[in-house]
Amino acid sequence: MATKPATGSLLGIESLELSTINALLGAAYRMQRKRPRPVLKEKRVALLFYESSTRTRVSFEYAAKVLGATTTLVSATASSIEKGESLIDTGYTLMALGAQAIIIRHPSSGAPHLLSRYVDVPVINAGDGLHEHPSQALLDAYTILRHKKKLKGLRVALIGDIFHSRVARSNIHLLTKAGAHVALCGPPELVPDVAMTLAKDVSITRDLREALTGADVVIALRIQRERLAGLQLSLDDYIDLYQLTAERVRWAKKDAIIMHPGPIIRGLELTADVADAQRTVIVEQVKNGVAVRMAILARALGVKH
Amino acid sequence: MATKPATGSLLGIESLELSTINALLGAAYRMQRKRPRPVLKEKRVALLFYESSTRTRVSFEYAAKVLGATTTLVSATASSIEKGESLIDTGYTLMALGAQAIIIRHPSSGAPHLLSRYVDVPVINAGDGLHEHPSQALLDAYTILRHKKKLKGLRVALIGDIFHSRVARSNIHLLTKAGAHVALCGPPELVPDVAMTLAKDVSITRDLREALTGADVVIALRIQRERLAGLQLSLDDYIDLYQLTAERVRWAKKDAIIMHPGPIIRGLELTADVADAQRTVIVEQVKNGVAVRMAILARALGVKH
Amino acid sequence: MATKPATGSLLGIESLELSTINALLGAAYRMQRKRPRPVLKEKRVALLFYESSTRTRVSFEYAAKVLGATTTLVSATASSIEKGESLIDTGYTLMALGAQAIIIRHPSSGAPHLLSRYVDVPVINAGDGLHEHPSQALLDAYTILRHKKKLKGLRVALIGDIFHSRVARSNIHLLTKAGAHVALCGPPELVPDVAMTLAKDVSITRDLREALTGADVVIALRIQRERLAGLQLSLDDYIDLYQLTAERVRWAKKDAIIMHPGPIIRGLELTADVADAQRTVIVEQVKNGVAVRMAILARALGVKH
Repeated sequence: MATKPATGSLLGIESLELSTINALLGAAYRMQRKRPRPVLKEKRVALLFYESSTRTRVSFEYAAKVLGATTTLVSATASSIEKGESLIDTGYTLMALGAQAIIIRHPSSGAPHLLSRYVDVPVINAGDGLHEHPSQALLDAYTILRHKKKLKGLRVALIGDIFHSRVARSNIHLLTKAGAHVALCGPPELVPDVAMTLAKDVSITRDLREALTGADVVIALRIQRERLAGLQLSLDDYIDLYQLTAERVRWAKKDAIIMHPGPIIRGLELTADVADAQRTVIVEQVKNGVAVRMAILARALGVKH
Repeated sequence: MATKPATGSLLGIESLELSTINALLGAAYRMQRKRPRPVLKEKRVALLFYESSTRTRVSFEYAAKVLGATTTLVSATASSIEKGESLIDTGYTLMALGAQAIIIRHPSSGAPHLLSRYVDVPVINAGDGLHEHPSQALLDAYTILRHKKKLKGLRVALIGDIFHSRVARSNIHLLTKAGAHVALCGPPELVPDVAMTLAKDVSITRDLREALTGADVVIALRIQRERLAGLQLSLDDYIDLYQLTAERVRWAKKDAIIMHPGPIIRGLELTADVADAQRTVIVEQVKNGVAVRMAILARALGVKH
Repeated sequence: MATKPATGSLLGIESLELSTINALLGAAYRMQRKRPRPVLKEKRVALLFYESSTRTRVSFEYAAKVLGATTTLVSATASSIEKGESLIDTGYTLMALGAQAIIIRHPSSGAPHLLSRYVDVPVINAGDGLHEHPSQALLDAYTILRHKKKLKGLRVALIGDIFHSRVARSNIHLLTKAGAHVALCGPPELVPDVAMTLAKDVSITRDLREALTGADVVIALRIQRERLAGLQLSLDDYIDLYQLTAERVRWAKKDAIIMHPGPIIRGLELTADVADAQRTVIVEQVKNGVAVRMAILARALGVKH
């Protein structure tokens, strides 16, 4: 039993030094510019997914394979995880099987942290409950940097379901650490007042126009229909008040970029024309994600790149 | 957004030139004769399967891996496809993740065509609804060629559920383009009269003996029990009239070969002794499928082989 | 159709010569000591899993990949196996697709044997029904050898659900062939008297203290709650009488090791402190499993290592 996470673990942004964040973003940039070498040859990486995922799973998988690593997917629906084996014992097993890093997605907040206290290999959080999704925040920061050259002093608007979003939480931590101001925008059910206490330099507004005005970056978050069930707010109300339309995004700065962690639902969080607009960089986020995850894996496995 | 499919796409046989068909069959032959080289090294291929499949999925996967490509499987049951992400956005995502070709199986006819109009990478149809299954038709033609040396002038009998069969549709297009005559045989519910209009050189008969008489090639198609539900025709009736038995296949030419796209159900479309007979080449079809799919992938990714 | 299993098949321990067992254990030892070479390069291995599994599947997969082979997973929940294709035809298909060895897990006892009579490639049993799990018995023997230097003359206690355990059956065959004495221990419902006839040098006791006294090796087996349903015995009764606790394991020899095929349920078959005790080698079993399966695959594919 380890008592603290192995070096190279990535559990969340909240506990990460700004210098580490910058090192990861720099490494990702170098990896994206040149053709990657198989620096992870003969390394074995396990993907332990207790929730389904396309983009995050495939992104980590490709990142690992491009660097030459061998990957194995263990998913909750296709394995003996169903039989009630504990997370920790599954971790022991994967480590004993030769996994040199474990990428985990789990519906419970804190599961990667728990795991990391028991295994001796780096644990990478690929999303845990309503808690954090650090690789997403890193790729978002990376994408913003490509367009804005800096994070410090930027105004970022986060629109939609902050409450249920681990992406929001990780983004708020990263962006404020880096000196950006984050404005959260949405109805009280999805953006509770307490969210303001997540970090300094966070403000809340219920008014989309106010949130967008002066924004350098607009990040829309996923709305899941089932999470609106039982709320005062209907889906139509949400769309009325918060959907990003071509007209509304003009409230932001002229050169503002529009982001979304995906998967998007056209006609819900944003209209189809906003999804496909020039300033919308959703596809670029996905693309950058592979480079960022290469950097995360190279750091986890302690190799130079 | 692309406006037309990327070069190297394989969406269906109907729209394919005979010269392209011949080029693919020739390439497959060369690939099968010699030990394949890793011409797709560092290429990334995504398999996007909205329906489950053993043979087609594994065949494409092996074909890609033998040529050195990296593959990733994204299946509807184990990914966020469930969350309602649109096909087009999934395509954007896979492309952004680095996929250089997308192999897609989808329950809706036309899904690969739709996808191909939006992504800039080749799209390969691995079966779409009741529409086409072009790689299957190519491997069927390849198998026939190995035994009969030519397609032109051959008499091919297609037996069974033509109506629900994308394999039948692709085979009819390919075989008639190449100059073969195709006789469709089955009850009106499974072989509607309108099927005759799919191509010239297609005839329909309700009588198995008539269909088999003079046939060089007999292709039995899958019967799915659930598709007979609600029809006048019972399963027993089908077997009575259309099952391929040792006695009945003697109605075909002496050197006729018996084919089936699989998976077969012994005792339904054909008897166990026919399934295992010398002239039955079902296993050979599967084997040839890997070579044909290597040729399809090499063409898609624009490499010489 | 083959009439007997291909050379290199591993269907069960019962039919295996002791010399083959020793050769496999020796090969595993050599493979674990030195860095493995890619002796299976360009070999293709199919994993055909009709039951879900983490450790066995990943262990075989890593073993194959470390040796350079290409693997493909075909699982019952994600493939056309659902469509009722017969096991034999699936085997034909995998072989035609190029699989040079088939690793199969199946809920029906004897399924690997049936398959092996029809395909020309080696079949490796990764667990069949209540019958055998030979690679598990081999890795258990390997682990015991690492600690005890020999099997001959050892006293091994097998605790728990013998009746439903293919691991127990394979272990009993292997250990008694090698000259160990095996004491089975559990309630009559889980350890029927007839189990004594499985091999000579097998005894049965209902008393845990008696089973443990003088034991060199203690192997606890999985208890599945659903299998106690309907029995006289409650889960609480089982724990009362047969759970391995820190106090009870002291009944065994001072240097006895504690084993379990996993997945374990802490607080059921054993207490958490026993699971994590120094003498408990469960994680080591998993680790050794990769080396043992490398040896199994190298033998199956006829390569020197």
